[in-house]
Amino acid sequence: VPKVSQDHLDARREQILAGARRAFATHGYDGATVARLEEATGLSRGAIFHYFPDKLAIFVALAADTNRRFIDLIVDRGLDDAVRAMAEESRDWLGVLIEVESRLRHDEDFDRRLTEAHAAEQQKISAWFENEQASGRLRDDVDWRELGRFATMVINGLAIRIVAGDPFEVDATLRLLNDAIAPRN
Amino acid sequence: VPKVSQDHLDARREQILAGARRAFATHGYDGATVARLEEATGLSRGAIFHYFPDKLAIFVALAADTNRRFIDLIVDRGLDDAVRAMAEESRDWLGVLIEVESRLRHDEDFDRRLTEAHAAEQQKISAWFENEQASGRLRDDVDWRELGRFATMVINGLAIRIVAGDPFEVDATLRLLNDAIAPRN
Repeated sequence: VPKVSQDHLDARREQILAGARRAFATHGYDGATVARLEEATGLSRGAIFHYFPDKLAIFVALAADTNRRFIDLIVDRGLDDAVRAMAEESRDWLGVLIEVESRLRHDEDFDRRLTEAHAAEQQKISAWFENEQASGRLRDDVDWRELGRFATMVINGLAIRIVAGDPFEVDATLRLLNDAIAPRN
Repeated sequence: VPKVSQDHLDARREQILAGARRAFATHGYDGATVARLEEATGLSRGAIFHYFPDKLAIFVALAADTNRRFIDLIVDRGLDDAVRAMAEESRDWLGVLIEVESRLRHDEDFDRRLTEAHAAEQQKISAWFENEQASGRLRDDVDWRELGRFATMVINGLAIRIVAGDPFEVDATLRLLNDAIAPRN
């Protein structure tokens, strides 16, 4: 029996995710049929669904990837870099992400899978805000949880602007966000 | 020929919008079939589509109503009342609103109809931010357009939080938003 290396498995998984992201961004979630997923990934449906139980699982993995990337940016390089990265994010991909997460809000299975996929990152970002406040880099007259929630609202509100095609200046956005959460003189 | 009064026409239109909003919130946009719109409004499809050319037109009118309500709140009572109203807005309705606006971002007809429906309100809110800044009630070292965009991002980011069922404290949100845009000492 041939043995498939972990590297090969990981590469295949990445190939599926990259192709599926393009297919979702181009055709929307519903429009990304299995035939289109095959075309975009260059793999057969058999190969695709060997790695993921269903289309929703591919979407959840992609949503978790996006979430992880932004949280890692915040933790490793700070809020400014994360906001700048959001300003450069694909409008089409953000549109699908927001659409599907809004549409499936009542789907308990989706909700559970997304929450599980986000759980580790959620702890990481919470610890970061708590530590930033304890280190004096964030204002201490508002709970660090609310500072994190506010920053998330601004980043998500920016995502909605991008999807709508509305203008904004990233420098002004950052200045206002930082002034809101910085230590008060 | 019987003459139908304007009051009667307005009342019918409101009846359709109120019922359709309930149907969209309960079943989602796609799930709100014509049969369900008839049930929710208590009117026949003939009556409904006498007032609106299609289902999308009903949605656009409802999205414009929601937008108008928030802009009127800001202009008449200030940002705090608008943010508090968003915190009380129906999760189901916000979910549909965000889902459909994201999904239809590439539909030129939808985009044009929504932009037209929002145009008058857009002028009103722009004038309000410009005037608040000129009157010294907003910081003057950042363009009033960016102050308005930032406030919109926070309100839309709050909407996403509500749809996701994530917690927040409205007082903390308001404090951070106001500190970001208030005149600097």
